[in-house]
Amino acid sequence: MSGILHIAGLGPGDDALVTPEVTEALAQATDVIGYIPYVARVAPRDGLTLHPSDNRVELDRATHALQLAQAGARVVVVSSGDPGVFAMASAVFEAVEREPAFESVDIRVLPGITAMLAAAARLGAPLGHDFCAINLSDNLKPWAMVEHRLRMAARADFAMAFYNPRSKSRPHQFAEALDILRAECGPDRLITFARAVTTPEEAFNTVTLGEATPEMADMRTVVIVGNSATRRVGRYVYTPRSAV
Amino acid sequence: MSGILHIAGLGPGDDALVTPEVTEALAQATDVIGYIPYVARVAPRDGLTLHPSDNRVELDRATHALQLAQAGARVVVVSSGDPGVFAMASAVFEAVEREPAFESVDIRVLPGITAMLAAAARLGAPLGHDFCAINLSDNLKPWAMVEHRLRMAARADFAMAFYNPRSKSRPHQFAEALDILRAECGPDRLITFARAVTTPEEAFNTVTLGEATPEMADMRTVVIVGNSATRRVGRYVYTPRSAV
Repeated sequence: MSGILHIAGLGPGDDALVTPEVTEALAQATDVIGYIPYVARVAPRDGLTLHPSDNRVELDRATHALQLAQAGARVVVVSSGDPGVFAMASAVFEAVEREPAFESVDIRVLPGITAMLAAAARLGAPLGHDFCAINLSDNLKPWAMVEHRLRMAARADFAMAFYNPRSKSRPHQFAEALDILRAECGPDRLITFARAVTTPEEAFNTVTLGEATPEMADMRTVVIVGNSATRRVGRYVYTPRSAV
Repeated sequence: MSGILHIAGLGPGDDALVTPEVTEALAQATDVIGYIPYVARVAPRDGLTLHPSDNRVELDRATHALQLAQAGARVVVVSSGDPGVFAMASAVFEAVEREPAFESVDIRVLPGITAMLAAAARLGAPLGHDFCAINLSDNLKPWAMVEHRLRMAARADFAMAFYNPRSKSRPHQFAEALDILRAECGPDRLITFARAVTTPEEAFNTVTLGEATPEMADMRTVVIVGNSATRRVGRYVYTPRSAV
């Protein structure tokens, strides 16, 4: 008896952004596993066991999901956004690497609308030219690497999207990130704080780097920094397709 | 009478990846505008006028869409993938910038599954850590800027996704891009050529930079280059969440 493990992206919050592929996988699932608020988005029904778990236990959660699928269950690991962007997909493959017996499990990643692209759509088209995505958390990498990547990204003149910009456990680092960006990009560069995108608590705040303060971001915020050509037109923010 | 202009992402090809939000916008539309193969994905029906147009007329197409919406139509501009990623959203805002009367048009961008994230999902999780997206076409920027961005991205140790890697009109540039990547990242770095993702013609080819040749890419290919930690596990390619 062989099960299947789907790693599914629920998008940023609005159910109108959940793909039919993900909806179908959830309809067929016997077990749904994930961080508490994401599992809470899945409606209970007969024949479905929900397994909500706390944050920062990604490897344990991945191993549990692989064990259930190995035993024949139809498992969906749910992530917010896209599972391949700073979410559960990498954690599952790390768990497979640690336990080669899991290589026989049928694993399929189902993409979703990731927060930066939902935020960009609401704003206009700030990521319409070359861009990068950086996780500002230093849980899994040294802060010096984040600083280096910010400098390289600024010198490449990428537009940038930042996930996990700020948490209570590291309040000073985002201030340092803003200092680096101001030094590299100047004070007039546009920066948008997009909070809880597509949910009832959605809020947008577009300012210049000179006006930006660390308190504008929290754990539910994705931050978008324009490139040197990003500008406002009407109520929108966009980056032209042409670099010059 | 005031219309509306939706700029909608159809995803990479499979209808199971079209969001319900986009499906609803198309169901309500009076006019659908876009590049011929994307408009061909929309079923004809009474009350809907399809406006297919050729490639490289993005600004004309955007202006036409804005004029129709201004006159009261419910217009959907369709893009493949996500309209905010190297697609029609920026072109529409460029058209608004040229003609301020268009600022009164209600414009809403509806995100979609962009090719790099669909390809990454099929592969495993190659974009599971910090990454960048670069359009390798020099239609709208100097090739020297592409080269500079490739070097900065390599020195940031970003995973990378390339759109429009190669076309008949510029056959030599992708070879130069591969040379830069080999010089910066070494010959063992993994690179995947993902063609026609989620369509019946889908094909994946993962090799090392040392093995990669320009002919492995064409206009329907998105290219994904790993960071220094990207590796294979079983039949998957993934980038660990940890940088070290």
